[in-house]
Amino acid sequence: MYKPLFFTLNAILLTFFTQVSASEQFVIQNTQTLQITSEFNKQSYELYVRLPKGYKKSTRNYPLVLINDTSYSIATASGILHLMEGRDIEEVILVGISYSKGTNPLFSRTRDYTPTFAPKETQGHSKAAQQVSGQANNYVKFIDNQVLPLIASQFRVDKTRKTFVGHSYGGLLGTYIILHQPSLFESYILGSPSLWYDNKVIFEMEQRYAKYNSALPATVRYYIGGKEGKMVTDLKTFVGILDKRQYKNFDYQYKVIPNTSHFSVFALLLTEGLVELYGK
Amino acid sequence: MYKPLFFTLNAILLTFFTQVSASEQFVIQNTQTLQITSEFNKQSYELYVRLPKGYKKSTRNYPLVLINDTSYSIATASGILHLMEGRDIEEVILVGISYSKGTNPLFSRTRDYTPTFAPKETQGHSKAAQQVSGQANNYVKFIDNQVLPLIASQFRVDKTRKTFVGHSYGGLLGTYIILHQPSLFESYILGSPSLWYDNKVIFEMEQRYAKYNSALPATVRYYIGGKEGKMVTDLKTFVGILDKRQYKNFDYQYKVIPNTSHFSVFALLLTEGLVELYGK
Repeated sequence: MYKPLFFTLNAILLTFFTQVSASEQFVIQNTQTLQITSEFNKQSYELYVRLPKGYKKSTRNYPLVLINDTSYSIATASGILHLMEGRDIEEVILVGISYSKGTNPLFSRTRDYTPTFAPKETQGHSKAAQQVSGQANNYVKFIDNQVLPLIASQFRVDKTRKTFVGHSYGGLLGTYIILHQPSLFESYILGSPSLWYDNKVIFEMEQRYAKYNSALPATVRYYIGGKEGKMVTDLKTFVGILDKRQYKNFDYQYKVIPNTSHFSVFALLLTEGLVELYGK
Repeated sequence: MYKPLFFTLNAILLTFFTQVSASEQFVIQNTQTLQITSEFNKQSYELYVRLPKGYKKSTRNYPLVLINDTSYSIATASGILHLMEGRDIEEVILVGISYSKGTNPLFSRTRDYTPTFAPKETQGHSKAAQQVSGQANNYVKFIDNQVLPLIASQFRVDKTRKTFVGHSYGGLLGTYIILHQPSLFESYILGSPSLWYDNKVIFEMEQRYAKYNSALPATVRYYIGGKEGKMVTDLKTFVGILDKRQYKNFDYQYKVIPNTSHFSVFALLLTEGLVELYGK
């Protein structure tokens, strides 16, 4: 008889001391959301802004760290910054650009992060997603003409220290940016870039850039997981080409992070990239 | 005249296409919050629950990963799980226990995560925080008698696979648990534990445990940052003692993660610990 009684009492106590609330989702501290519609593709996006702890009490400007693929990156980056800011690294303003509202995230990232229309690419998310591919051009104009000015108008951004963070397709997008408008950001943290996309079209873009430019004014840190197979080979080949170019004003490095996959590498590269660029 | 006109147009376009909303904070997907009051210290807490993507469509039970220090850990863990679940690792239910409501977080973690009352400890958060120290005993009873039963009553938890994650004071707390009630969880990811606390009182607790026990039924993964100085030495000493004990049923390892600090190590150890315990 003892055990059932104990369990009954326990159940009563549980009911008494706990309230199961309506399912409120978890909110990240120090964040706010701005709404923005792209002039270039008429899609609506959200900007998630995380201000550093010291922001309100200071009057100074802060570096800006812009990230994509916010479904995972904004949470990871917020947690990492919470621990590291003011300790391992200086304080920064973090801004994430959501996928466009009402769009399948896989379609949104295929449309916005890939540089060319490649309906026959079979390694993308799907055949259907590939039908909207290749609009990185519009997305970069959106960042340049709307996102960065809006953020600068609302927050104290140090415009001379802006960092772009991209992983996977986002790493491809970042590579596209440095080969078309390198000084859009001063620095780039690029992880596991999808250099394979559309028969490695990014290699042709680099060749074209090299034809007309002797300088590449940007600081770039590439990272990739040691278990990423062919993507590691692609990145090594790409960096080998960069080595030969000898671009002026180009500060770049790449690092293979051992024992990590395309997915497990992200939190590691973000931590390391932030320490590289903003380490105290 | 061209440039000013351009900027004016740009400003008009910005106003037209963007709406600066009231500051909505960023919400983590697939999460919900439960309210709970501890019978043991009468404090109220929130439980942040993140369900795996496949939860709704399945009927099976999932391992439980319980974390503390949710001000940073819940965001980091949610982002990491979003990328890794179903790929690098199997799906798990993540639960974070908040600091007690209305309490300074530094007081809350000092009260709940430290094993002894140590008013004279000078390396804690503050002299004032130390005045409430040493109530880990109550916190563990709260987890055992209220948190775990509540979660199990609301969600499909595999009760044979429960993991405790703790960092810093949380790593001390996890060590305290394995030395008093090791089978409360089946496995532990413990980062940068504060073994220095209260003149290394945890070493005495281990000695007492060894006196009365020949087994330590738990799987434990310790991690620490290579730049943590004396804390690395402490952990190595502690693990050296464990080596000598030869506890039965004790599966443990420790790893120094190079080039990381007490703060930058967290996302790395969480990634690695989850892959260690739940890797596919």
